Amino acid sequence: MAHQSYKRIRILLTLFLIPWLGYSQTHEVFIRKIFDESLLRGKSYDDLRSLCKDIGPRLSGSSEAEMAVRWSEQKMKSYGFDTVFLQPIMVPHWERGNPETAWITFGNQSIEKITIKALGGSIGTQGLLEGKVVMFNHIDELKKAIRTQVEGRIVFLNQPMNAAEIQTFKAYGACYPIRGNGAIEASKLGAKAVIIRSLGLSEDDHPHTGSMQYDTAVPKIPAAALSTKDANLLAQRLIRNADLMFAMEMDCRTLPDVPSFNVIGELKGRKSPDEFITIGGHLDSWDQGEGAHDDGAGVIHCLEALRILKTLGYTPDHSLRVVFFMNEENGNKGGKTYASWVKDNHEKHIAALESDRGGFTPRGFGCDGNDKTFKKFQSYAPLFESYGLHVWEKGGGGVDIGPLKDQFTDISLFGFIPDSQRYFDFHHAASDVFESVNKRELELGAAAIAAFLYLMDSDLFR
Amino acid sequence: MAHQSYKRIRILLTLFLIPWLGYSQTHEVFIRKIFDESLLRGKSYDDLRSLCKDIGPRLSGSSEAEMAVRWSEQKMKSYGFDTVFLQPIMVPHWERGNPETAWITFGNQSIEKITIKALGGSIGTQGLLEGKVVMFNHIDELKKAIRTQVEGRIVFLNQPMNAAEIQTFKAYGACYPIRGNGAIEASKLGAKAVIIRSLGLSEDDHPHTGSMQYDTAVPKIPAAALSTKDANLLAQRLIRNADLMFAMEMDCRTLPDVPSFNVIGELKGRKSPDEFITIGGHLDSWDQGEGAHDDGAGVIHCLEALRILKTLGYTPDHSLRVVFFMNEENGNKGGKTYASWVKDNHEKHIAALESDRGGFTPRGFGCDGNDKTFKKFQSYAPLFESYGLHVWEKGGGGVDIGPLKDQFTDISLFGFIPDSQRYFDFHHAASDVFESVNKRELELGAAAIAAFLYLMDSDLFR
Repeated sequence: MAHQSYKRIRILLTLFLIPWLGYSQTHEVFIRKIFDESLLRGKSYDDLRSLCKDIGPRLSGSSEAEMAVRWSEQKMKSYGFDTVFLQPIMVPHWERGNPETAWITFGNQSIEKITIKALGGSIGTQGLLEGKVVMFNHIDELKKAIRTQVEGRIVFLNQPMNAAEIQTFKAYGACYPIRGNGAIEASKLGAKAVIIRSLGLSEDDHPHTGSMQYDTAVPKIPAAALSTKDANLLAQRLIRNADLMFAMEMDCRTLPDVPSFNVIGELKGRKSPDEFITIGGHLDSWDQGEGAHDDGAGVIHCLEALRILKTLGYTPDHSLRVVFFMNEENGNKGGKTYASWVKDNHEKHIAALESDRGGFTPRGFGCDGNDKTFKKFQSYAPLFESYGLHVWEKGGGGVDIGPLKDQFTDISLFGFIPDSQRYFDFHHAASDVFESVNKRELELGAAAIAAFLYLMDSDLFR
Repeated sequence: MAHQSYKRIRILLTLFLIPWLGYSQTHEVFIRKIFDESLLRGKSYDDLRSLCKDIGPRLSGSSEAEMAVRWSEQKMKSYGFDTVFLQPIMVPHWERGNPETAWITFGNQSIEKITIKALGGSIGTQGLLEGKVVMFNHIDELKKAIRTQVEGRIVFLNQPMNAAEIQTFKAYGACYPIRGNGAIEASKLGAKAVIIRSLGLSEDDHPHTGSMQYDTAVPKIPAAALSTKDANLLAQRLIRNADLMFAMEMDCRTLPDVPSFNVIGELKGRKSPDEFITIGGHLDSWDQGEGAHDDGAGVIHCLEALRILKTLGYTPDHSLRVVFFMNEENGNKGGKTYASWVKDNHEKHIAALESDRGGFTPRGFGCDGNDKTFKKFQSYAPLFESYGLHVWEKGGGGVDIGPLKDQFTDISLFGFIPDSQRYFDFHHAASDVFESVNKRELELGAAAIAAFLYLMDSDLFR
């Protein structure tokens, strides 16, 4: 090789390759430190255990939710974040009351008990409610039904989640209308109550609760979920005897709104302290189980991500905030209040990330940003390959951080994507307990978020 | 655009692009059918339930292992494979006997119970065995020790698996010598027994058993595993009191070899019936738990893969075999016998795949083949991306199919790679029960293997 061309290659190397190697190696080394901290000295698993076992489920307006607010404030303070504060909000206050009961009877013959749970926000039954059942296998069947089919009956929406859908969140989304709009559609045709097949993929005995809506144009009727096993059972019994009677009693009620809080911790930025990056999940949960995956894992992921960066002595360029949003499940008052509050404060928010898909093995991230941001976002894939993160796709965001988009048109929103296969075994059900979270999977998720937060802060918006 | 160049493009399209699209679309469509069959009408979960609950653990030489052989034969016949047969082998017969007991005492003071399980193949203690303990944090520390440190004592190998290792099988491999060679190394220096920290990543109460070796050059000494929790406890107690006494009793013993079987099912190839592709896992398990992940999931994966292809009416080019190997855990007599038997039968074996890493979400496959095969193997990645399989790496094979490599130098071996994070919570422990396997994760694994088997048969070796 001629000396001249050797020299030219050397110059090219110096100009391009070596700085690039330096850049990439710095990231690689720091990301490895982040994963080591999470896997070897992490706090996420013990913190989640405490949130689940010392407090338990945390429905907005409950005393447990308030206990969780204090717990979170103390926890953030114990990690020495620069600022920790509570942001006041008003939240709905719905209570389940006495446990629900239900059964079916066949004429004078046998009685079978059915496991139900009121959907969140449902009215009670005012004593025992009894009626014949009309079953639909899809909400569109109900919409096409005529009044005489439905009037005075209990509508049973037995629409299953599609098990063939690989992305379980898509299967959930397709089924959501039976829970969200079932009471409205059934009431339009004069039904006296609505019962739905639980939005879950496993066949088990846990009814999955969750939010539902009423419409002022039609009467409110009680709404409840059956476990998938009991939905199958009821469907079978109806084939045998279409005139069977369904009896149910629910004591739930909505009380006046009560004050609550978002919990916020912050590491102050050195270069651009007035520009903010928010990461968070929601502190509230449904009243079933312990809210371990939904969304205990998400808030702990984000808490741990900020703790790790602080513990490793990282000084952020921007101000980094972890927000434990209150009331994602039934009102999103936390997300909405936070977005308008930061706007009123004239803060500039450049990015936000949400973790609200459980504490499973991390698979990647979703990005809702402009083309330049998305391209750079995708360029991070090689840094995460050895950690098993391969998904760098469009999408992202989350219920809590969504309202920020209304305030900042150029904000980039990101969503953490863990493996989704087990999520709907636990979602909004009694099975969503600490024991359903695997230590390593939780720790890997926290590390992935910490590593991505580091890249967002130090590189993505340069 | 000139007509000429348009025509040229059209010719190019016809020659290259359209056949390619056709090829790719055929694969896509059939793979989608495979996943639908597994997720919507799959048998894997119920079959695994039956194997785990109707039979349970299946240690080589046990009556449960023989029951499992009959169960497997019947199951394969019920699926209508062209040929189903049992291949006779001889297997070791080791028994645990009465449950083990162990405790520590501090002089005349307190007693603490310790949970131990004999390692597979260990000799018993012939009544109570008692001694002082010498602890090493790594097997290399033991190798460097001098005789006076060790002689007459119980060696405690407290080497933990490295939690910072993302690939848990690598962490396991690095720790394996304490189990495999601990008794030999300790005996060389005159130890009276060896106890090891369980090869597991979670802190729990389950000792993990597994195979170990003796060397005829040194005396055999009893060998047992402590749960990770009790390993931590013992390490702490030794700091306080290096002279504490450890007492243990184990009733285990090795009996004469007994006859057993590999169970083999076959779909006959149409184009090349004399060329074989084998997929399999091992039917035997340790005697703890139910062998659900190790390797109930693996044999069920492969059974289901063949069932799916048959159910979908697929006619294979090559002869496809599912083999339930016996005795992977403590002798590999099944794998060795199968390899020499097919060679003696003058069968040509072109490929084999093993599933022996549990029933978790599929992440990809490993390939041990020549450059051409590896390149084509990697070209399948886009077909599996929407199913979440992103890993197409070198490596692969497995203990059972490994001996085929000695018989056929140009055979390609493949390994199924599921998510590895939870595997070592269950491996060889009482926690490896049916309930630790998720239905969807199992079904996705079976579908991934069926899809890859289809590609191996129809495309990979063209």
